[in-house]
Amino acid sequence: VFIRSEKLNDALGLDVTLATETFQRTGSFKFRGAANVAAKVPNRHVICVSSGNFGQAIACACKAAGKTCTVVMPSMSAQVKIDAVRGYGALVDLIDTRVIRRDARVAQLAQEFPDAYITSPFDDRLVVEGNASLGREIASFGVGFGAVICPVGGGGLISGLVTAFDECGFKTDIVGAEPLIANDAARSIREGRLVSNESESQTMADGARTLSLGKINWEIVQDRIRIVEVPEDAIKEAIKTLFLLANLKAEPTSGLSLAAAVIDRDRLQSKPVCCVVTGGNVDPSIYASLIA
Amino acid sequence: VFIRSEKLNDALGLDVTLATETFQRTGSFKFRGAANVAAKVPNRHVICVSSGNFGQAIACACKAAGKTCTVVMPSMSAQVKIDAVRGYGALVDLIDTRVIRRDARVAQLAQEFPDAYITSPFDDRLVVEGNASLGREIASFGVGFGAVICPVGGGGLISGLVTAFDECGFKTDIVGAEPLIANDAARSIREGRLVSNESESQTMADGARTLSLGKINWEIVQDRIRIVEVPEDAIKEAIKTLFLLANLKAEPTSGLSLAAAVIDRDRLQSKPVCCVVTGGNVDPSIYASLIA
Repeated sequence: VFIRSEKLNDALGLDVTLATETFQRTGSFKFRGAANVAAKVPNRHVICVSSGNFGQAIACACKAAGKTCTVVMPSMSAQVKIDAVRGYGALVDLIDTRVIRRDARVAQLAQEFPDAYITSPFDDRLVVEGNASLGREIASFGVGFGAVICPVGGGGLISGLVTAFDECGFKTDIVGAEPLIANDAARSIREGRLVSNESESQTMADGARTLSLGKINWEIVQDRIRIVEVPEDAIKEAIKTLFLLANLKAEPTSGLSLAAAVIDRDRLQSKPVCCVVTGGNVDPSIYASLIA
Repeated sequence: VFIRSEKLNDALGLDVTLATETFQRTGSFKFRGAANVAAKVPNRHVICVSSGNFGQAIACACKAAGKTCTVVMPSMSAQVKIDAVRGYGALVDLIDTRVIRRDARVAQLAQEFPDAYITSPFDDRLVVEGNASLGREIASFGVGFGAVICPVGGGGLISGLVTAFDECGFKTDIVGAEPLIANDAARSIREGRLVSNESESQTMADGARTLSLGKINWEIVQDRIRIVEVPEDAIKEAIKTLFLLANLKAEPTSGLSLAAAVIDRDRLQSKPVCCVVTGGNVDPSIYASLIA
């Protein structure tokens, strides 16, 4: 769904179109990649790790495809996300990320279920291919966006955008919006090699707490994107702004795009910009504190 | 914008499509009628009374049409709405509705500005004609809705729906959702004559605090609609449900439609239903308390 708000643009001095995935099935863009995985792999059981939205998405997609799945989730995940994954009939495997790394737990499960397909919320070509569908929608929206901005965690969405824009010859700046306190992608681009955060960040943008970009994602994006680093208070401000000036309920991770547009205003103010709002699943108590 | 949420429909046992006007210009359906007034009247100045959303809409529409306007608002209106009207350059005339009736104040202003056009948020054929555009969108959405439900205050929107559906031969039940504590429309339908509330209700659905349906509106709707009366706690529950299960930020008045669908479930559960979400402008503190 594409939304334009005159109030928002007047207040920010920008020409922003919001591409919101908050009304997507399961409430975030993650359903695009997950549905592609569930539809295309031959395996009957799917295992993945997710901080939440991909978990809901793969659970829903597997259920729709008549498959089963196990979702490894950090015990710190928003309760609403844990409940939603269980609601789609998936098995939730809660871990304490200070005790065991997510990928180590997935490796254990892979041994337990040798016939399962192991997917990743971002580092999987089928996920990138599914996410590319949003890029095609943005490219065909009919506006020659000077820039398209999306949040960056593992890089699954931005890889999909790069892929789609290249395929359909859509020329635009592709900008990743990353939490400043989890800036592995920014450092990777600066250093020209894939670097990781030392430990999982506690950024409020819980969809961007990944340690690094995926390998597949890094291959796709390294020479094609730039990154804007976003402080935590700017994320909060963006969520509040979306609430007040665009009537849009967005989850913290989604605030990264608009916050990056504001930070990058000097470069963007003369051109139409598309900000991807990646999802809307947020605990009511957290949301209430963000808009207060 | 039309939204469907699987989670919402599964939870409610209904087949609901939300027609949301929260992303409409000025954040509510009121812009449809207001824009029609501002474009069609020859007068350079427009005066109206509004509990808020029509005020924003007419202020914005007049500004766009190069006209000026005065908006009479109850001093109890949400601050965000008062600020927004002023933000569009209109003059806000705040009144204490316990001291002077809205229509009495409008009559005073009409004498002061004899060349002005006096409009009403609902009791004006141009407003109804503008609101009919939403009815045409619903009729052409491609679903044969068994019922279309919208909030009822003065009856401007539901008159527009009746008008549009009749014009394009769209057969559906047209249901007005009205606060139980401001049930003048329900009583009017029961008694077969236009009746008023004794005094302005303090329902949380501030867009439905009108004393009665407009005369024009009553003529249009009296034999064409039924009314569902909605208790206050059901309005609150609907706003929270829209937040949790549809990722939709809606203002209290907008909760009436979904609440009515739930109350009327026995009659509606076997058919596709369209619930109109009329607007999204709500003070953050009020909203935070609704979703808590």
